[in-house]
Amino acid sequence: MDTRTDHAPAHPALPVDHPLRDGRTTDSALVTALAGRPTAGHPVWFMRQAGRSLPEYRAIRAGVAMLDSCLDPDLASEITLQPVRRHGVDAAVLFSDIVVPLKLAGVDVDIVPGTGPVVAHPVRTAADVAALPVLDPAALAPVAEAVARTVAQLGTTPLVGFAGAPFTLASYLVEGGPSREHLHTKAMMHADPASWHALADWVAGITSQFLHAQVLAGASAVQLFDSWAGALSLADYQAFVAPHSAGVLSRIGELGVPRLHFGVGTGELLVAMRDAGADAMGIDHRIPLDVANSRLGGRTPLQGNIDPALLFAGDDALHAHAAEVIERGRAAPGHVVNLGHGVPPTTDPEVLTRLVAFIHDQP
Amino acid sequence: MDTRTDHAPAHPALPVDHPLRDGRTTDSALVTALAGRPTAGHPVWFMRQAGRSLPEYRAIRAGVAMLDSCLDPDLASEITLQPVRRHGVDAAVLFSDIVVPLKLAGVDVDIVPGTGPVVAHPVRTAADVAALPVLDPAALAPVAEAVARTVAQLGTTPLVGFAGAPFTLASYLVEGGPSREHLHTKAMMHADPASWHALADWVAGITSQFLHAQVLAGASAVQLFDSWAGALSLADYQAFVAPHSAGVLSRIGELGVPRLHFGVGTGELLVAMRDAGADAMGIDHRIPLDVANSRLGGRTPLQGNIDPALLFAGDDALHAHAAEVIERGRAAPGHVVNLGHGVPPTTDPEVLTRLVAFIHDQP
Repeated sequence: MDTRTDHAPAHPALPVDHPLRDGRTTDSALVTALAGRPTAGHPVWFMRQAGRSLPEYRAIRAGVAMLDSCLDPDLASEITLQPVRRHGVDAAVLFSDIVVPLKLAGVDVDIVPGTGPVVAHPVRTAADVAALPVLDPAALAPVAEAVARTVAQLGTTPLVGFAGAPFTLASYLVEGGPSREHLHTKAMMHADPASWHALADWVAGITSQFLHAQVLAGASAVQLFDSWAGALSLADYQAFVAPHSAGVLSRIGELGVPRLHFGVGTGELLVAMRDAGADAMGIDHRIPLDVANSRLGGRTPLQGNIDPALLFAGDDALHAHAAEVIERGRAAPGHVVNLGHGVPPTTDPEVLTRLVAFIHDQP
Repeated sequence: MDTRTDHAPAHPALPVDHPLRDGRTTDSALVTALAGRPTAGHPVWFMRQAGRSLPEYRAIRAGVAMLDSCLDPDLASEITLQPVRRHGVDAAVLFSDIVVPLKLAGVDVDIVPGTGPVVAHPVRTAADVAALPVLDPAALAPVAEAVARTVAQLGTTPLVGFAGAPFTLASYLVEGGPSREHLHTKAMMHADPASWHALADWVAGITSQFLHAQVLAGASAVQLFDSWAGALSLADYQAFVAPHSAGVLSRIGELGVPRLHFGVGTGELLVAMRDAGADAMGIDHRIPLDVANSRLGGRTPLQGNIDPALLFAGDDALHAHAAEVIERGRAAPGHVVNLGHGVPPTTDPEVLTRLVAFIHDQP
């Protein structure tokens, strides 16, 4: 069935069987809201919906290392589909990990349970940056295959592709692992800006390749996560980060899919992040959507921002909070309901299923 | 020598030999800047200056558990004095830990190296809150003694007392340890506000006792750290946190010492935190001091906000950054130079010593 309508863009850069080009997802609530057009109901999905909070995920992942599961097209596709089946959300988000493009490029990185990504050889000097490998496009085949298999089963439900933004991904490379303070990364920016920019440019390149592969294989939107950008002052963000995020967003823009951009604690950076080339902004739980909308000049569709902590506060408090999020989101030209951060691993999945039903019931 | 001048307050609530009452610290650069009066030079100290970054600290702490060292008056006093001797900073800050008042009240808490404070029995229900112990004022004797011994050696250099604010301290109790997300704490606020308020009130009580003891023993200023308040929306902060921080600040206000208040990533909360009863606001490295000053209406002395990451970027970049911090701080009615967060454990102490000299050389 071709559901494409007159106002749908032609998407000449996408393959003819892409869901946005053949029209399957063109009128989905997600794509409509991200374009700033009115939707009949409130589209909702959850960051990190695919993965740790689901028992069927833990069952299927048993004995398989994290990065191996991301690179097994059957497994990654099944994990991506699980929350769509269970919760009835309005979008799938690719099961992947922020370090997958590093791994595919040949960087020695692994995910250590309880710690997170660990990079064997931190990248801190000009020589370290010069020694970074080239990402062979052929290495992206398992990602494209996972997307294609997922999209083949999603029908009219769009798939959101995702990648970590240059600052967040570069921080893992510089620090050698997760960091609260990003001391070495920020020191590198100021002490050796040339090496920093070369590193961030390299990361922007592999990130663009990674997102391109997801979009060409069938993703109907992308989200660029700059998880840790909130650690930066606006001045540092603009000088050292925005140009590289802009490079990624502009290269994805050529494909004509909506580009979401999100970071934790980035209330001070919202305009700069949007101006890097995002079509819609994810908002964390710290600032109300109407405030975010004002800061952004009332012209940018928003995504968010249910506080994940409320998932543990009982349905009464959670649903009252979700209703307020929806109410405040009416100020924006488009609103995709989501959490203000990822689904916590200890979340009861039944709470999420009831939350989706509640959101879909709202006028 | 009595250096008290005509404009010094009488401080009738303080003991006659208190450094603010007998005048030793009344005209110190720190106390002057915190009162919003002009200073000859730029006063500077560093959050977490006492402790992990100093080799003489690691030597003296060898084999002594963290909380034992905080409660040994000789040891705590020596550790507090070490950075004053080494760096020539304009204030000492009591060597202590955020969980010391919990420990003194009889809560089963310990500091686990590599993890942080661990609370044996998390406090999550009304019954848990009702079972919290009473803090016997006599238990505070080692803290008062450490302060008294330190102040006896500090002469005209003021000692800053410190305590964790109710939200941050309550979060350790509710979560059972350090948390990035504060899920259980925020869930408790919304699911069981009565128990939350009872808990925060209990914490405010022991925090007030802890700060009172430090001030009466000789601290010339206090800093209330709400380290994690930046995790909260403004609405949650105002409903669930501000009243309890205000309770602490008002009880300390009766003593007439300047009250600093600080949290990480709290640019959105600055006015609410100041209005809880702070005389001066600590600003983290995320927002420039002139921006913070504007948000606060130009009437609040500021402390901050050198980015700790710049301590690793070489003296040229660090000193250029410090000069900019000083320049932007001129907008405020008073400015105490500090970092935008605590001294990282891996900091080279020589870098701090040279930074103090650089700051003192600025016009």
